[in-house]
Amino acid sequence: MRIGAIEAGGTKFVCGIGTERGEIEDRVSFPTERPETTIANVIAYFKDKSVDAIGIGTFGPINVNPGSPQYGSITTTPKPGWADFPFLETLKREFDVPYGWDTDVNAAALGEATWGAARGLDNCVYYTIGTGIGVGVYAEGKLVHGLVHPEGGHVLTRRHSQDAFEGICPYHRDCLEGMAAGPAIEKRWGAKGSELSSEHPAWDIEAFYIGQAVTGTILLLSPQKVILGGGVMQQKQLFPRIRSEVLKNLNGYVNTSDILEHIDTYIVPPGLGDNAGLLGSVALGVRALS
Amino acid sequence: MRIGAIEAGGTKFVCGIGTERGEIEDRVSFPTERPETTIANVIAYFKDKSVDAIGIGTFGPINVNPGSPQYGSITTTPKPGWADFPFLETLKREFDVPYGWDTDVNAAALGEATWGAARGLDNCVYYTIGTGIGVGVYAEGKLVHGLVHPEGGHVLTRRHSQDAFEGICPYHRDCLEGMAAGPAIEKRWGAKGSELSSEHPAWDIEAFYIGQAVTGTILLLSPQKVILGGGVMQQKQLFPRIRSEVLKNLNGYVNTSDILEHIDTYIVPPGLGDNAGLLGSVALGVRALS
Repeated sequence: MRIGAIEAGGTKFVCGIGTERGEIEDRVSFPTERPETTIANVIAYFKDKSVDAIGIGTFGPINVNPGSPQYGSITTTPKPGWADFPFLETLKREFDVPYGWDTDVNAAALGEATWGAARGLDNCVYYTIGTGIGVGVYAEGKLVHGLVHPEGGHVLTRRHSQDAFEGICPYHRDCLEGMAAGPAIEKRWGAKGSELSSEHPAWDIEAFYIGQAVTGTILLLSPQKVILGGGVMQQKQLFPRIRSEVLKNLNGYVNTSDILEHIDTYIVPPGLGDNAGLLGSVALGVRALS
Repeated sequence: MRIGAIEAGGTKFVCGIGTERGEIEDRVSFPTERPETTIANVIAYFKDKSVDAIGIGTFGPINVNPGSPQYGSITTTPKPGWADFPFLETLKREFDVPYGWDTDVNAAALGEATWGAARGLDNCVYYTIGTGIGVGVYAEGKLVHGLVHPEGGHVLTRRHSQDAFEGICPYHRDCLEGMAAGPAIEKRWGAKGSELSSEHPAWDIEAFYIGQAVTGTILLLSPQKVILGGGVMQQKQLFPRIRSEVLKNLNGYVNTSDILEHIDTYIVPPGLGDNAGLLGSVALGVRALS
């Protein structure tokens, strides 16, 4: 099978061809411009590829309600031209194949559950922590949409006792994203995270916020694996700190060896590494076919 | 169809007979004693009832992993005799019918999604706020278990600026349950919630904590309905206060009319009222049959 995959980001689009075994056979990347231009690039790429299905994991918020006239579009975004642009419909007019359509983070969660760190599991959450913070939820073998779709990057967290930073979320000021996304680190410390040493106090504070959000996710959803990806999580010194925060927060309450004894393999980076996004879209395409 | 239903609480057991249309045809109630006594009462009740299936919604934490040798038992509980007691196995030896087995709150969520406030929806959460706080999660048509099962009563919340109460959760001190369950209200104010006037400041503080937890649930899970039950939620003045906290916390971020325009029908009491628990167990039994 030849699965077309689109990883649609706010900065760049990655298109590729994958297989039902999770291999990537080809890929291209181009900047995200106005939708007419960008989607024309997408169409040009797939034109001679004879794909059997296309999976799209995209930035959002998006409409994932198949019963809605707006299904398949990005809903509200400051990116010029993209709000309400009929993303999926435009592609459907060109390629008459089954489509998978979901958020980038739900796609990544599905990819990880299919071929990555949560392979074979029915429940995982995928956090991307970078310019923003997003959460994909895969529960009992299904990607969760509900009313809209998860927006777990904006949960409220307690403030770190040594942290006077006001937060930068335009909606909630000091929610998780407002306190812990990449731009919050940069504004708080006057330097990008990648410029701070691995022993800088920034990382204890960062782990405090992420650890709180992960704790809440474990309590509410009981995932079998928590996967933390995105640019900020390239700072690998965060992982032991986050695990430690989670154990401290839970304080033995969730009585299972996966957490109490094996947290190193419970809270993990993406098993698919830099391919998590594109393979997530491949997984959406595979699921659309079956 | 005759569906046997068991609502197993830490204080009392309710057993009954229901139908696939959500009617209750008979019920009895007895105190929760040691398991040998209580389960003998359950068996005696169902002995001549010729049920086609049995649904059990129980206090916990419980083992809901069908692959585990401990499946069907309550795992850790201070109640004498109940920890690791083979609850489900003991019944199976008496009645050879299909069984539904889940937490009391998951059962209630399923009951509400089948016949109650979330009827026809695929996604809802059910909070019980009483002696403790529990959360049932129904997502994309499935009850969520994951690694163990949701324990959303113990999420961490920010402290109310006027509240110096230390909290009473033995694990987390000032988590949601530690700050907002019935015993926390009683300890904070020196009087049971039912003895406080509906204008008492207790209710603003209570709504502040519950509203935060509900906000986090909306962001992480995007439920189509949030149902708040349990003894504390008999204080109906809490509902408008909680809705107001949620709107304030979200600050327009989740852009959907269900929340922005119709929050009165989005955050609601159980549609099944006092039958939410027993009908939840009936719903588990119906699902076990199909």
